[in-house]
Amino acid sequence: MAGIIPAAVEVTGGNLVLAIVVAAIAIGALVMAALFRSEVLAAGEGSEKMREIALAVQEGANAYLMRQFKTLGIFAALAFLLLLALPADDWVVRLFRSVFFLVGAGFSAAIGYLGMWLAVRANLRVAAAAESEGRDPAMNIGFRTGAVVGMSTVGLGLLGASVVVILFQDDAAHVLEGFGFGAALLAMFMRVGGGIFTKAADVGADLVGKVEHNIPEDDPRNAATIADNVGDNVGDCAGMAADLFESYAVTLVAALILGAQAFGDKGLIFPLIIPAIGAITAVIGTYLCKPRPNESGLTTINRAFYISAGISTVACVVAAFAYLPREWMDLGTGAEADLSPAMFAVGAVVIGIVLAAAILALTGYFTGTDHRPVKDVGRTSLTGHATVILSGLAVGFESAVYTALVIGAAVFGAALLAGGNLALALFAVSLAGCGLLTTVGVIVAMDTFGPVSDNAQGIAEMSGEVSEEGAQILTDLDAVGNTTKAITKGIAIATAVLAASALFASYTQSAFDEVGDRFGEELLSGFLVYDAKLIVGALLGAGVVFLFSGLAINAVGRAAGAVVYEVRRQFAEIPGIMEGTGRPEYGRVVDIVTRDSLRELATPGILAILSPIAVGFGLGVGPLAGFLVGAIATGTLMAVFLANAGGAWDNAKKLVEDGHHGGKGSEAHAATVTGDTVGDPFKDTAGPAINPLLKVMNLVSLLIVGAVVSLSYGEGENDVVRILIAVAAALGIAGAVFISKQRSATITDDVPATDAA
Amino acid sequence: MAGIIPAAVEVTGGNLVLAIVVAAIAIGALVMAALFRSEVLAAGEGSEKMREIALAVQEGANAYLMRQFKTLGIFAALAFLLLLALPADDWVVRLFRSVFFLVGAGFSAAIGYLGMWLAVRANLRVAAAAESEGRDPAMNIGFRTGAVVGMSTVGLGLLGASVVVILFQDDAAHVLEGFGFGAALLAMFMRVGGGIFTKAADVGADLVGKVEHNIPEDDPRNAATIADNVGDNVGDCAGMAADLFESYAVTLVAALILGAQAFGDKGLIFPLIIPAIGAITAVIGTYLCKPRPNESGLTTINRAFYISAGISTVACVVAAFAYLPREWMDLGTGAEADLSPAMFAVGAVVIGIVLAAAILALTGYFTGTDHRPVKDVGRTSLTGHATVILSGLAVGFESAVYTALVIGAAVFGAALLAGGNLALALFAVSLAGCGLLTTVGVIVAMDTFGPVSDNAQGIAEMSGEVSEEGAQILTDLDAVGNTTKAITKGIAIATAVLAASALFASYTQSAFDEVGDRFGEELLSGFLVYDAKLIVGALLGAGVVFLFSGLAINAVGRAAGAVVYEVRRQFAEIPGIMEGTGRPEYGRVVDIVTRDSLRELATPGILAILSPIAVGFGLGVGPLAGFLVGAIATGTLMAVFLANAGGAWDNAKKLVEDGHHGGKGSEAHAATVTGDTVGDPFKDTAGPAINPLLKVMNLVSLLIVGAVVSLSYGEGENDVVRILIAVAAALGIAGAVFISKQRSATITDDVPATDAA
Repeated sequence: MAGIIPAAVEVTGGNLVLAIVVAAIAIGALVMAALFRSEVLAAGEGSEKMREIALAVQEGANAYLMRQFKTLGIFAALAFLLLLALPADDWVVRLFRSVFFLVGAGFSAAIGYLGMWLAVRANLRVAAAAESEGRDPAMNIGFRTGAVVGMSTVGLGLLGASVVVILFQDDAAHVLEGFGFGAALLAMFMRVGGGIFTKAADVGADLVGKVEHNIPEDDPRNAATIADNVGDNVGDCAGMAADLFESYAVTLVAALILGAQAFGDKGLIFPLIIPAIGAITAVIGTYLCKPRPNESGLTTINRAFYISAGISTVACVVAAFAYLPREWMDLGTGAEADLSPAMFAVGAVVIGIVLAAAILALTGYFTGTDHRPVKDVGRTSLTGHATVILSGLAVGFESAVYTALVIGAAVFGAALLAGGNLALALFAVSLAGCGLLTTVGVIVAMDTFGPVSDNAQGIAEMSGEVSEEGAQILTDLDAVGNTTKAITKGIAIATAVLAASALFASYTQSAFDEVGDRFGEELLSGFLVYDAKLIVGALLGAGVVFLFSGLAINAVGRAAGAVVYEVRRQFAEIPGIMEGTGRPEYGRVVDIVTRDSLRELATPGILAILSPIAVGFGLGVGPLAGFLVGAIATGTLMAVFLANAGGAWDNAKKLVEDGHHGGKGSEAHAATVTGDTVGDPFKDTAGPAINPLLKVMNLVSLLIVGAVVSLSYGEGENDVVRILIAVAAALGIAGAVFISKQRSATITDDVPATDAA
Repeated sequence: MAGIIPAAVEVTGGNLVLAIVVAAIAIGALVMAALFRSEVLAAGEGSEKMREIALAVQEGANAYLMRQFKTLGIFAALAFLLLLALPADDWVVRLFRSVFFLVGAGFSAAIGYLGMWLAVRANLRVAAAAESEGRDPAMNIGFRTGAVVGMSTVGLGLLGASVVVILFQDDAAHVLEGFGFGAALLAMFMRVGGGIFTKAADVGADLVGKVEHNIPEDDPRNAATIADNVGDNVGDCAGMAADLFESYAVTLVAALILGAQAFGDKGLIFPLIIPAIGAITAVIGTYLCKPRPNESGLTTINRAFYISAGISTVACVVAAFAYLPREWMDLGTGAEADLSPAMFAVGAVVIGIVLAAAILALTGYFTGTDHRPVKDVGRTSLTGHATVILSGLAVGFESAVYTALVIGAAVFGAALLAGGNLALALFAVSLAGCGLLTTVGVIVAMDTFGPVSDNAQGIAEMSGEVSEEGAQILTDLDAVGNTTKAITKGIAIATAVLAASALFASYTQSAFDEVGDRFGEELLSGFLVYDAKLIVGALLGAGVVFLFSGLAINAVGRAAGAVVYEVRRQFAEIPGIMEGTGRPEYGRVVDIVTRDSLRELATPGILAILSPIAVGFGLGVGPLAGFLVGAIATGTLMAVFLANAGGAWDNAKKLVEDGHHGGKGSEAHAATVTGDTVGDPFKDTAGPAINPLLKVMNLVSLLIVGAVVSLSYGEGENDVVRILIAVAAALGIAGAVFISKQRSATITDDVPATDAA
């Protein structure tokens, strides 16, 4: 495995200029974001009652995020100190890796906050526009809001990466590990915390409102409605924005780490050029996103996606042929394929763009109301709750397989481009990730559209001041938003697999670097897939994905239970609430969900950080590789399964509500409501959080690999230290899980005595 | 990797005598089975009405199994021819590998048939004894029935393996591959087919009976009740017996294949001695299985398990020290550990026995009504259907992780015994599997107890001639049976992981053997875990587990739907059925379920056989290794998740039926019935079938490895052949999945027009 160690590269001359151009494009994207933002804020704000409701949502969302950032600040400070303590090549890397960890985390938080901040102002404006100006202006405000978040994501990600490359040159890869880790860690917590918040409120509201009292969604008599609307903003909006920023940052990090081996100094620049092209085409795509008269919202969005993807493809091909050399250079890394560098790069980037389009189509098929799967789930509602659950699960299982096949084909195709060269194969995979990135601007815009239109509908419904026509417009926009949300999740998991596979390569490469030639042979055998210890690693990696999903779902269940009891209490104790003369205490529900979500996010977070530490120090550097492979394989399937089963249930419910199989209020409808409720934490809590989970675990492994190797291959006393670290990490996980069990006891003990037998 | 090729060994002298002694013990076990059988048949048969019902169940079960064997005969004949076509070392191996494939398949079928044959006679006798003689004689008949199946499983497994060793000596390993493959393939089909049958009938009966008409389980007015009882026998009884026989056979095969490298000729005998000890202690355990007055049935069973496990442990230690040499011999295979051979073997076997005990305890905790998890699921019934589903899923996810941790610890512990030697590590894993095997006799006896007592309760209920006291005895026995069934599934998946890991080692070893030194280095790099193609393999392996689970669950859903429509039709069209004056047409439901199950078992079966062929020939020998690791890791977690979530829901329902949270007929009860219905195909169709699935895929890989390697590393034109085979296999899978989709269309089209909107 000699020669895998990358040569030192410097970014000078024309390359430096290009890097500065990329940074300028990044700043340009941020300027565009600011322009779109003022466009959104300029729109009308509707009636006083609507403003009042929106203000309550704003306050709740703001209060939650502020408390969340305070909690996460502690985690970030701890991680900062731990990073400083880990060995590195020199003090520059050691210090700035930690500093850029904070920058990455800060950017992730900022994007999340910005997304929430604008969404809680746009919701109201979309509702007002639907009422007074019709569908197209309403849709336009929704799109522009998404575009702000999309352009900010792209801008901050590209800015961070290009600045690091300019400042740190050949140390850039290691500093970027910190940047990516900060982004991923914060995004994971925001996904988990926001996911628990939004679904605890949603599930709780549905269980009491729709199921027990048979009142519609977003009915103002339900004390959980404001919390539900807050949830859309802190979960679907802030959490998702942070998540996609993290995908963006980590994919770039992975490509830059591997790039230098293949293309030398150009390898640090080329992976920046591709998403910079994406930033420009995203602006074009945003302007294209104008609904034509009488076309469905989804058609508009799809058109914008396909046109900007097409422009990106052409531009990337031109860039690759113009910039990359005709022949492979001898960089001493052995990286060389049969194809020319430009053909190799073009192939990989195009695979990424095509992958995005394929996932768009697949997800649309499995979660759209027009196709067989959702129709079949809807039809099983005729035989009751259980068959709805079973058919939805089966759709989830199957669709996960097809999505995994498509992602697998992309990885395999990228690997084929590299011939037999292992390191180059994984660079190709990360370049495919960069190709996917070119679509992120439009994807984020599409996704943000979802919670904004959902909230707009909620505000209109609660205010009771929107005409039937306006309400129908908002309902249609909400349905479009549901589909775009499902698509985004598919894209996000695809980027996760590509980025995680590439990071994983950096991990093994670092392992070989660290021990050098002395342990080369011995180390090598530790990475053979039929090593029994490595199989154990794979088993544990799959296990972490299951445990993480279980913990997240359980957390939603517990928090939703607390909401149910509180809303029931208010129905029982506040006089006149059902008649509309008494006012529910919305704030209490928001407080309960805020408290519970922040408590609950700790355990999955600790699991993600500590499990690679326990496996790496406890079982060794080879089993940790097995662990990552097990986690990537199982995590991919599980994430898509959860997202698509949830999406199919949600839309099966919509199908019944549109009058099929008995329509609203029928037994069939009750059965699909059960499906939707089960699907809520699947698709919005556990499923999307697996994406940052995979990257956090890969990045933690990459960061600790030096320490693991030096403790594993040194003196006997090192073994004691190594095992102590592993035991401490394992105990940390066990403690966190144990505490969350105790909490479950406390909460279920809250059940009033009359309910329990 | 030189030196991994095992030296030719011969079994002569004392070793030959020992092998013959093992064969004699195997025959002894079969004689004991015959004795226990006459004991069961000697018991009284109850009233005429009970005999009449039992006869209907007997006829239905017999007809189903006969039609199933006819269908499977075609598969077996095809597999026989394919096996003959595959390359082998010489014609002896080539011919007898295929012949013993048929023997393995035949034994598997015979055990399944025997289990069913006796169970449909014992059910009646247990019911009669409960009525006329009380609990202890009833329990005794149940145990004895289990003991017949247990002793037959052990006897036939051991007989087959020892005869092959005696006849084929150093070719035994390859001939045994055929034997194991036959056993696993048939078991998988019986598990899938029987699992679909039993759950389609059960779910269908519950959906119409309990949910729509609010009549009790096993009510004779429900046309699906006979089919439900038939299902217990063909699924839980015949399917499970075949499955455990297959676990037994395949674990032995894996240990024998790896044994010769470590211990030379003694390595072909020692793995036979351990389960032979288990056969003897199982007889002791069976006699110990006598209920003491006033103790619960579970206590009796646990006592029998722990005592026989203790005796086994002592006997295995003695055998290892008496038989194995003090020092490692130089066999030219490089197999040598720091521990002495005897200590090494004892360590591995004890790990296996301890693993069985640990799983017994873990499964009991997660699915028993006395512990937190099931109580928590029960409590969530207060907030409706959806929370029951969510909490059960979370229990499943979590318990899967702990079980995987325990299995992982066992594999890791076994690997540690081997020091750094890869091949020896996997031999240790397979010896741990042999340790587990010593408990199989008792485990099968415990498991068979489940469906027999379930059926006895059904017959008593349907006949209406059993007193309240007799009914209570049968209900209690049924609850005990539920727990023993869950435990058996845990043990079965543990054997699957151990056997699959060991088979996997034989696979990689064969790959190296096949290409010899020439391609050693190149091949080696194909097995490095960070090869991008190998990651794709892992992704596909995880994908097959998801697809298989989805297909199995979907099949149950479809077949159950057909039952629902038929029973509804009978309620509507047969006059006086609700008043008990009209007689439902039980036979029609049995026919429908028989037809559907046989149709539905093909697709998952084809997937299991063809997917390793598509991956191996299409992507290569290294990615196929990644495929197997992905499948083992994900399959382990998925199997336990499905089994334990199902078990927890089942018992949460029992908790509510015992009067908690509102008791029978309450909203909470309806919610737990939904949970139980969802759990049915989880725990009895998809979950347990993953166990033979893993082994079938590993065995197929082992059988094709020679062909894959010779096509991959030969001339260019070989590539065309290789890719053609892969494409044909992939198209086969796609076709099977497509056909099953079309069927779904046909069946849902059956929905009467009034139901569909």
